[in-house]
This record gives sequence, C-alpha cells and structure tokens, in this order.
Amino acid sequence: MTQPLRIAIAGLGTVGGGIVKMVQKHGHLLEKRAGRPVVITAISARSRNKDRGVDLSAYAWEDDPVALARRDDVDLVIEVMGGEDGPAKACVETALQNGKHVVTANKAMLAMHGQAMAEMAENAGVALRYEAAVAGGIPIVKALTEGLAGNGILRIMGVMNGTCNYILTEMENTGAAYGDVLKDAQELGYAEADPTVDVGGIDAAHKLALLSSVAFGTKVDFASVQIEGIERVTLDDIKNARDMGYSIKLLGVARMNPDGLEQRMQPCLVPSNSPLGQLSGVSNMVVVDGDFIGQTVYQGPGAGEGPTASAIMADVMDIARGLIIPVFGQPAAGLVKSDASGTGSDAAYYLRFSLQDQAGVLATLASILGNYGVSINRMHQYGHDGKTAPLVIVTHTTSRAALDNALAKISALAASLAAPVALRIETI
Amino acid sequence: MTQPLRIAIAGLGTVGGGIVKMVQKHGHLLEKRAGRPVVITAISARSRNKDRGVDLSAYAWEDDPVALARRDDVDLVIEVMGGEDGPAKACVETALQNGKHVVTANKAMLAMHGQAMAEMAENAGVALRYEAAVAGGIPIVKALTEGLAGNGILRIMGVMNGTCNYILTEMENTGAAYGDVLKDAQELGYAEADPTVDVGGIDAAHKLALLSSVAFGTKVDFASVQIEGIERVTLDDIKNARDMGYSIKLLGVARMNPDGLEQRMQPCLVPSNSPLGQLSGVSNMVVVDGDFIGQTVYQGPGAGEGPTASAIMADVMDIARGLIIPVFGQPAAGLVKSDASGTGSDAAYYLRFSLQDQAGVLATLASILGNYGVSINRMHQYGHDGKTAPLVIVTHTTSRAALDNALAKISALAASLAAPVALRIETI
Repeated sequence: MTQPLRIAIAGLGTVGGGIVKMVQKHGHLLEKRAGRPVVITAISARSRNKDRGVDLSAYAWEDDPVALARRDDVDLVIEVMGGEDGPAKACVETALQNGKHVVTANKAMLAMHGQAMAEMAENAGVALRYEAAVAGGIPIVKALTEGLAGNGILRIMGVMNGTCNYILTEMENTGAAYGDVLKDAQELGYAEADPTVDVGGIDAAHKLALLSSVAFGTKVDFASVQIEGIERVTLDDIKNARDMGYSIKLLGVARMNPDGLEQRMQPCLVPSNSPLGQLSGVSNMVVVDGDFIGQTVYQGPGAGEGPTASAIMADVMDIARGLIIPVFGQPAAGLVKSDASGTGSDAAYYLRFSLQDQAGVLATLASILGNYGVSINRMHQYGHDGKTAPLVIVTHTTSRAALDNALAKISALAASLAAPVALRIETI
Repeated sequence: MTQPLRIAIAGLGTVGGGIVKMVQKHGHLLEKRAGRPVVITAISARSRNKDRGVDLSAYAWEDDPVALARRDDVDLVIEVMGGEDGPAKACVETALQNGKHVVTANKAMLAMHGQAMAEMAENAGVALRYEAAVAGGIPIVKALTEGLAGNGILRIMGVMNGTCNYILTEMENTGAAYGDVLKDAQELGYAEADPTVDVGGIDAAHKLALLSSVAFGTKVDFASVQIEGIERVTLDDIKNARDMGYSIKLLGVARMNPDGLEQRMQPCLVPSNSPLGQLSGVSNMVVVDGDFIGQTVYQGPGAGEGPTASAIMADVMDIARGLIIPVFGQPAAGLVKSDASGTGSDAAYYLRFSLQDQAGVLATLASILGNYGVSINRMHQYGHDGKTAPLVIVTHTTSRAALDNALAKISALAASLAAPVALRIETI
C-alpha cells in the first residue's frame, strides 16, 4: 500500500480543474491520510491549449479519453466530462474493462447505465464510485452505504438540485416571477442556457434513482421516477403556501411500499420551520429515516468546483486506502428490479384552480371532489375580478389516484380556465 | 471474506441490547451489505439474569469482559460498558493486544487514552473505531475521516450534548428556569441523577477533543479544551439573546490558529435562524467548514438505543468489509501534540452584569471596558428596582484576554453584586 495511487482525469472543466488544484494543494495531506501518495499521471480534455489556471505540465496528455483509460500508468480514472453516453461512457467502460478503478460525477450516465457498469466493475474487482453525482459535496452516498449500513432505510427525502432551490427561494424572498428569477439564475451561472434538465426535475431524479438503489437494494430504475418540474409553480402558490406555514421545494422522495418502490421528484409543500423548509439558495439537503437511527439530515453545497472536487476526492481516498465495496452497497448481480409503487402514498394536497367567476362553479367543484372521496380541509378564494376566480383548496389525506380522477373531471368543466395545480404536502 | 465476522459485546445496557436487536432483525441484510455474515458469538455484562427483552441464549456468556476479549471465537469486540478506566479499558486493551478489532462508544476513555490505544491498534494491524462516541447516530467521524478526506478542515462546530440542548431549548420555549427543566430532564431520562458530566460540558468536550484530532491531525488533547457548562445560563440570558435574534447553545468549536489549536466547549449565542439556532430537543448537529467543500451540516439523534446501535454497526460493517484506516485518520505514531491556542479567536460578546443601582456605576463600568479596548455595540439596562440593576452589553469584536481583564476589574468593584456573565457570539 505504499505504492502511489496513480490517477487520470478525463475532463478538465470546472470540476476537473478543481481536482487538480486539490491534489496540488493537499498532496502531502492526502498521502498522510491515505497511507500512500495520490498522484495525477495523465489527463484528457477537448482542448489542450485552453488556459485553466493550473499548471498541467507534469501530466501526460491524451486527446482521447478512451486512450487515457487504457494507459498502463493509471490505476484510477476520474470521469468528469459528463454526458450519459458517448465519450464518457466509452471512457468508463474501457477503464473498468482494463481493471482500473473509476470515480465519476456523472449522474445521467449512472442513472441509465449504472447497473451494467456496476456489474462490470464488480466482475473486474475494481471500484466504481460516484459520491459527486449526488448532492454535490455532501457525503450522502457514503452515509447511506456505510454510515447507516446497520439500518433498514424507511425513506429518503431531499432537495437535490441547487438551481431549482435557488429559483424557488428567490421567488419566495423577492416576490419575483419564475421567468425573471430563471433569467437571473442563468446570468449568475446557476442555470444552464437550456434549463430543462434542471427545472424539469430530471437532474434531481437521476440522483434520486441512484440513492434509491443504495437505500433499498434495488436496481437503479430512473424510468420509474415520477417527475414533475417547477415550471408551473407560481408566485401565488408560493405566497399561499407561506401563508399556511409551508415552503415549496422540488423534493425527491423514495420509499418502499408494500406494492413496490415509490420514487417521486416533484414540487411539494414542506413546513417552513423544518430543515427542508429553511434550506435556501443553491444548497442541497438529504433527510434519511432509518429504522434504528431515526432521522438524520445532511446539508451542504450542491454543486461547484470545490464541493464536487471534495466528493470526488473522498472516493479516490477510499480507493487509495483499499476500500472496495459493491457499487450500490450490495453485489450488483443480486440487485432486484422492484415494481414501481402506484402514484405515491396518501397525502394531503394543495390545489389551485382557475375558474370562471360565476355562480354554482364552487358547488360543482366541491361536489366532484366529494364524489371521489377527496375531502376538503381548507378553502380560500381570492382576487376574483368578475371573470376569473382563483381558488385554493387544501385537502385532507387522500390517494393521488382519487385526486387525479377528480381533477380530470374538474378540468373538463367549461368553467375551468386552466389545468388545476396539485402540490403534495409532504410529511417531514 | 466469506468467513463470518464474529463479534462479542461487552456491556448489555441500552446500547448493547440495541446491537443485539439489530443483528437479530437485520442479519440477512447485514450479510448482503458486508459480503459476509456478521454474527454475535459471545457477550458479557454485570448481571447475567437480568431480563433485557432479547433472546441471548445463542451467545456464549462471560462474566469477565477481559476474558471475553481473549476468546478465540471472537474477531471484534464491541465495548459499550462505559467508564474511562477500569473494566472498559482493560477489555479494550486486551482485545487489541490479542489482535481483535474494537468498536466502542466510550468517549471518556478515548479522550483520555485514545492516543495510546490508537497506537496499540495500529501496531496490531486491527481497527479501533468509535463513531458512536461522537454525536450519537450521526456518521460524523466517517464524514470527517473519509467523506471530507480531500479537504483541509478550517473549523468544526457543533451541539454535541443532547441533554444540554434539551435543557436550553426547553428554557427558551417554556420560560421555565434551569433547575426546573433539569429536574424534568432527569425524570424523562434525558439527564443523569448526577448531571455534572453533561451540564458541565465535559461529555461534549470529550467528543470535541476526538473530532479535533481527526480534523487537524493532532493528538487527542482533552486537557486543553476550554470548558464551560450551561449551569450559569439564566432565563434572562435566553430572553435577552432571543430579543436580539440569537439562541444560546452549548457549542463546541475547534479551529487551528497560527498559535495552536483552539478547542472550546461553552454556551454561545448563535443566530436563531441558523441551522444551529434552530436545533431543538435532544438532537445533535455538527457543522464542518472545509477549504474545498465549504460548509456541510450533519444533524441527527445524539443518543439512545437505536441511534447508538446504528453508529456501532456502521463501524462493524466497515470492518466486515475490510476497511481498516488509521484510528484518527492518519497514523497515530505521526500525530503531533499541538500547542493550545490562547483564549479563542476574537469575537463579539454578550455580557450581563448585576450592579448596585446607584449613580456613577455605569460610567465606571463603561470606562473600565474602554480602558481595556473593549468597545460597546449595544447596551440595555432593565428591571432595576432601586437596589440591583441588571445590565446587558453586547461588545464589538474583542479579544477574550482583554475582556477577561476588564471583567476581573469590574468584578472587584464594590457595586458588582455577582460575577459578570460573558457569552461568546459565534460567527456561523
């Protein structure tokens, strides 16, 4: 174990550059902690001549990340190029086939190909690690696979996309509309030019699918995650929620139900005074309920150069220390595909309707809800102007299926001016 | 690695019983996760015949924990007897000397003997682990030694004693006095009959000393922790703090300063709207600042059967998976004893004085503070009754040494009716 661990970095964007800085700054510390030197031997990126603000002259250069993954002087490949297929996938697969450990931040790739890659790694006897793929710097994969390894996991819940949390908290704090805040976020670099993957909930759903696998011993099943983005959340929703003591968060929830695995990523109401409700800006938070430990909460930066480099290096250090555990906490070959649970466990819902401001509409709507067994806890009509009447209803606990049936019926009413909004009120 | 890991449990109180329950409930799950069976082979406790609500008939019994630690059919000894010396120490040392791994929840023992025991373990090539010794179920030792292993640690800060946090939050929420809440806490089982170790800050300081060692690569140095308990915190202090937007917490802080290691465990004011300020009840929270990751926060139950068993089992599972890292994250033989930093980095302070209600006293006090360079940010005199005048001052940032000199001078005034209270306002 006094041989150096020789690492290669595929991708020299923000994260790759951060890893180089970390190794250059903390080389001595890493060696003391790992019991062996951790050295960079080779790197690869699209453009060789770009100034990245770090001295790369000591490292061998490869134009092709696949060639990088084949090098004899490399024990471990760090993949931080991104992209669920293409060069990233080819690089990782080549590394594993050549008996090299892999550390990656690539949630999209693992959400799609994680099972196959895990089997490949475990057959080769090497590690495939991805702490940086979930919740940025927070060591949550480690907490689940190791720190809570004695527990049956009851539920995972979390805010796992900093862009969405930034947008929602800015809307709540400043009263600015979704579109304006999104534009600001893009200018600040918190959101991509095409924000769909973030605001549509897809990025966060990738992360949830990985955590679910670890928590429940099931095959990664991204396709079964129920995904709803934050695009339809309005300032009115945020204000209405706040008036009732709630904040709206893009919340991921995974839980094993009798009928299968529930995986949801959707805007939810959570109590404003809970840790999740208090979480502001680009931070991430994961809340885990275990059958012995009870509830633990993990909070930290969800993205960025330093946090992502930190998570990558945590994996590298484990490998340097000789820790090789199954990719998803149990042998990949033995993971089962769970049935997908229905539309989520029963809950109370926040509903917002846009209705024509005319006599009898309210009674019709209430009777439809009643017919489907959806009972009303609170109702609040506001700002009607003779034409439209916004109406907010908080239901008692109900099944989502019953609610959806009722909402379909209400949507079909001539007096319904827009599709109803239904946001789950999550129990913390 | 398909050989079972054979564990022995020394101590069958709440925690020991919890471990037995966990192994009995989750045996199959533990085996899948560890890649090998995790089995209990032998147990030891003071009283053999006590009903502990679990079936112990399958395990060999030893009256003597030292004999337990010598058994040939044991690979790993879990020490959950407690006590910093005596049988616990003898049991652990015997186990290490006999080449057996040790997992312990014993913070007092490790705060005193951790360095010697770590060297013993590392020389024998076995693991000595103590996740359960710090912050209950929260996997914070793992987060520091592994999850943040790429970072230079800038500061650790935390609420690490559930009893104290329960007392302080109850005082804040109910307006009951310290003594009454302490009595309630004792009746609820949250506080010992002799509460000194908890309310005096000693238990939490043990934990801080262990985390400091891991974070800063120094020898455990409990003797240098500046300790102040919560016994002198009054309802007035809590109310005054709240009026200014602060909560009072028994806060541990460790940081490496140019002149040495700062370790403090003392009641501090923290912003009420911060995660630490929001922490209520018997929960624990640790906040870690790393140079790459920034700030991460870890929250969970600080004690109890399930959480402690969870932390113990996390260590056991690591060992079952073959992970043996240095006890304090770096080889014990290479750890250095740091100088102790002075009285802490500069900070603003909350001061409360009990003064005779007479002319000129305030001017005298203000001029003493001024003479020592302590400048006043806010001052508030309240409830004077012609005899005593309580006075609250919030200072600007000052050195503790200057403040202590000024307070000594003020204490010596004839008009000073009680020793001044000085609580640090911590920057989060």
